[in-house]
Amino acid sequence: MTYHAPVDDILFALKTAAGLDDLINRGSISVDADTVRAVIEEAGKFATEVLDPLNSVGDKTTSKLVNGKVETPPGWAEAYKAFVEGGWGALPASEAIGGQGLPEMVAMAVMEIWSSSNLSFSLCPLLTHAAIDAVAAEGSPELQRVYLSKMVSGEWSGTMNLTEPHAGSDLGALRTRAEKQADGTYRIFGTKIFITYGDHEMTDNIIHLVLARLPDGPPGTRGISLFLVPKRLVNADGSLGARNDVVCASLEHKLGIHASPTAVMKYGEKDGAIGYLVGQENRGLNTMFIMMNEARLGVGVQGVAIAERATQRAIAYAQERKQGRSAKGKAGDMSPIIEHADTRRNLMTMKALTQAARAICLVTARELDVSHAAKDAATKAAATARAALLTPIAKAFSTDIACEVASIGVQVHGGMGFIEETGAAQHYRDARILPIYEGTNGIQAIDLVTRKLPLEGGRVLAGYIAELRETVEEVRASNRPDFGRMGERLAAAVDALEETSGWLGGTLQKNPEAALAGAQPYLRLFGLASGGNYLARGALAAARNGPAGSAAARIAVARFFAENLATAAPGLKDTIVTGADSTLALEPEALSA
Amino acid sequence: MTYHAPVDDILFALKTAAGLDDLINRGSISVDADTVRAVIEEAGKFATEVLDPLNSVGDKTTSKLVNGKVETPPGWAEAYKAFVEGGWGALPASEAIGGQGLPEMVAMAVMEIWSSSNLSFSLCPLLTHAAIDAVAAEGSPELQRVYLSKMVSGEWSGTMNLTEPHAGSDLGALRTRAEKQADGTYRIFGTKIFITYGDHEMTDNIIHLVLARLPDGPPGTRGISLFLVPKRLVNADGSLGARNDVVCASLEHKLGIHASPTAVMKYGEKDGAIGYLVGQENRGLNTMFIMMNEARLGVGVQGVAIAERATQRAIAYAQERKQGRSAKGKAGDMSPIIEHADTRRNLMTMKALTQAARAICLVTARELDVSHAAKDAATKAAATARAALLTPIAKAFSTDIACEVASIGVQVHGGMGFIEETGAAQHYRDARILPIYEGTNGIQAIDLVTRKLPLEGGRVLAGYIAELRETVEEVRASNRPDFGRMGERLAAAVDALEETSGWLGGTLQKNPEAALAGAQPYLRLFGLASGGNYLARGALAAARNGPAGSAAARIAVARFFAENLATAAPGLKDTIVTGADSTLALEPEALSA
Repeated sequence: MTYHAPVDDILFALKTAAGLDDLINRGSISVDADTVRAVIEEAGKFATEVLDPLNSVGDKTTSKLVNGKVETPPGWAEAYKAFVEGGWGALPASEAIGGQGLPEMVAMAVMEIWSSSNLSFSLCPLLTHAAIDAVAAEGSPELQRVYLSKMVSGEWSGTMNLTEPHAGSDLGALRTRAEKQADGTYRIFGTKIFITYGDHEMTDNIIHLVLARLPDGPPGTRGISLFLVPKRLVNADGSLGARNDVVCASLEHKLGIHASPTAVMKYGEKDGAIGYLVGQENRGLNTMFIMMNEARLGVGVQGVAIAERATQRAIAYAQERKQGRSAKGKAGDMSPIIEHADTRRNLMTMKALTQAARAICLVTARELDVSHAAKDAATKAAATARAALLTPIAKAFSTDIACEVASIGVQVHGGMGFIEETGAAQHYRDARILPIYEGTNGIQAIDLVTRKLPLEGGRVLAGYIAELRETVEEVRASNRPDFGRMGERLAAAVDALEETSGWLGGTLQKNPEAALAGAQPYLRLFGLASGGNYLARGALAAARNGPAGSAAARIAVARFFAENLATAAPGLKDTIVTGADSTLALEPEALSA
Repeated sequence: MTYHAPVDDILFALKTAAGLDDLINRGSISVDADTVRAVIEEAGKFATEVLDPLNSVGDKTTSKLVNGKVETPPGWAEAYKAFVEGGWGALPASEAIGGQGLPEMVAMAVMEIWSSSNLSFSLCPLLTHAAIDAVAAEGSPELQRVYLSKMVSGEWSGTMNLTEPHAGSDLGALRTRAEKQADGTYRIFGTKIFITYGDHEMTDNIIHLVLARLPDGPPGTRGISLFLVPKRLVNADGSLGARNDVVCASLEHKLGIHASPTAVMKYGEKDGAIGYLVGQENRGLNTMFIMMNEARLGVGVQGVAIAERATQRAIAYAQERKQGRSAKGKAGDMSPIIEHADTRRNLMTMKALTQAARAICLVTARELDVSHAAKDAATKAAATARAALLTPIAKAFSTDIACEVASIGVQVHGGMGFIEETGAAQHYRDARILPIYEGTNGIQAIDLVTRKLPLEGGRVLAGYIAELRETVEEVRASNRPDFGRMGERLAAAVDALEETSGWLGGTLQKNPEAALAGAQPYLRLFGLASGGNYLARGALAAARNGPAGSAAARIAVARFFAENLATAAPGLKDTIVTGADSTLALEPEALSA
């Protein structure tokens, strides 16, 4: 079934969770609400008409390495050309470098749409955008002059080269070598793996951003530098010169995102690939970390996207497929399975998780926008800290639920869900990379507990929890029967979050292993409390302003989340606070016996 | 990495959860403990040496329909031949029909081993066994004489033909037609889908068991009859005759179990496929239901099997893969990821869920054995009822956790988990069919709430809950510090189970939709209370008898389950008891808007 961008849902989250109107009024972002809607609607059209029809084609055909060239699936190059010509590549870049300067909130909303309709395709502009950020933030004026505008337009694509076979989560272990030349350039030697769109023929040039180590650099993460390595060298006049010494050695055979070429890249098989330093020597990882919040948020949005797509497909099937007789069905007739209570629980779970994750991601984007726009240091610091706190939740909660929602989506289809032609299985396969790349969700949870929870001595978190409590109080004060136990369940979730946060904060000092053992359930608990909060804010807004029909639906989803999903929060608290000993009871030898 | 049958874990579950020794002592089963171990060890060898090496080959090659014949992957036919020659096909059948008459408990233990090493392969003997059961239970003496011994030996394979395009969960809607002939045979006309091993060349003949409708039969489920339809007709002397009018029209392109041919079967494209009635006219579904408990339990065991395989693979990788430095790692060294607290939680979760599901399945098998062997009616009825109660848990809980455990398995591998060659992804794909086939897990949950919970006015369930309480009391009375909060957490889980059972029992009358809305979380809650109970019994036994080292590991896993997973039980109670209104708040029109 055809993808349709959930324009109203996205705008609802932008307004009720992420405070779009408030930001516009305060001048923190320089677009008006009509423009935001228009951009989202236009993106939705492009996605429905151009990207969505290629999604299944790409999955079946896959990208292939043929005679040293990477062939993308049929229609891919044309779609990319249309994407660039439509100006979509430039959308997220700032105006200073030739982009459209749209706020992060809108860029992320649009990215959801690209990723929903065709995750494999969307990775090419996403990685290009990440590379643009690196060059724009730390590249020399000369590098920016030569490379930026063609990357911003999408004429050239970009890649990020971090991982090596023995250095995944642990980047400190990387071995790719950079040797400084007399002319100020560097020669790069080494192998990088898992390079998304590492090679292809859709653009004339590919700009690789590569982490490598200088011979005299300190060991570990402090001796890593960042280099720009073009596939084709660029002449002084901007024209393309010789091929650089970088090749795609092979493509991976993956569980999902088949059309996105995941390359093993070899640098310096001959004389060394010519590279240009980005930023300072040995500070490459700092540059990467600057961009990491946005990249991680972007992956969280991909989680929302796949969850949304899987939900749309499951709902469409459940309306059409008839089996058994529901409570309202007539004797002798089969009922659409969407009428069965059991299927309704499945679909409500899919909807509620998707909408909660979307709200978390868009709120995180909002904080980035506030941080970018802030004129006073305090506002900037507060927004930056809030974005830092929420980023691991946005990344990990959204991608965990993407896998869960995609799995429920298969289930709703019954036997047809297991048949590849149905399409539900592709979402289940595609989703599975999301909890892994851009920092595994385990790493996100550790980041949350060890770096984010202690931010400003815990005050960043305390301030956030205080806001959650305000929502709970508003829900309770509203005293609406149609809110059911929303207030009670969300209060219990916030209590659980606060208690575990306190416990983790204390335990992190005394027994760090025990705190780390609780990191994953803590992140889940955080996501439930946070997601429930934003949906409740939406319900409050809908109750105040919404037309009766749509308000009822917003309230129902928020209430469902609180009464059916956030109910897991107190149990997660028990797991975190009293489960560490048994988690760590078996030493590795006994665990593997 | 190579599969090794978890012989000790299986025997531990057989003894401590399923009471193997007790059944042997009472004479309910006619094997001794040494034989049981020997059978399991021998099966493990065959699985490791023959089936496991073909698992990935089969996934890559897939079964294919070529010129009207189904080609199984390279090595498949030879492995099947070895399987039959080893007598493994006959293992689960009763002695009366030429089988080895091993108890269900042992048959299921062995089936776990086949399914772990090669799920696609194992489906052929599994379906054959189901067909044998139907013929043995209801077939005429003549049908049994002609077909049974060759099916029992595995010389001929069997299939079950239930599903049609418009009739999946709702078998009452099936349309395949059977016309009675003057000679007492029938002609079958219709299309069946999702027929596992519907066609292949590994055996000389394939015996299809087909549900079809007589022209004068009543509508719905009461007008369905069961027929035996051989691929090749069998002459009076037992030799093979002409091809019957049944063909494989196509094979499905599936998410997983690629090597298992899933066929669309066309019956009666010419004059009608010749079929023989099994049992009475219009009573076909009753015959199917007799076998359903065992078939559903078998699928539950497949869930255990995939979870076990995924766990073995993840542990092996976590021992080998080094990233970062753990708390016990030396400065400058990378540590195996199995030392990281976060990975240890993942691996403990995999182990504990797998072992809990295994115990539930083997206890269910035990009840079937007691029921089969019982000489007094009361014992038989009690065991039959207990098996009926536990079957939906065995099927659905085990297959739900199979998907979860396989997903964690991918995650433990990081980026390598997403690469097909690693093997973890195959488990994630293969597992996904298990919650669907043999009655979706939604159907299992509905069966639990609407048929099993009310068994004997709720007394079957009450008796079970009383047993769970005995374990809780034993755990508490043992007063062992190394049991941690096991007693407390399990008590809370049993309380939650009892309260929700009471609520569901009452609600089922007043507001059946609300009860059905809670069916899935109720099944999960049941699985947690039940699984935690069996692991606790294992811990109690280990504490009493076990050598210090292995006892510690058994206790740790049981305690982990109680303190980290069973902690979800009270939240599930809240979801069930107070979540139905919001689950059903949106009518289908609003839900799909």
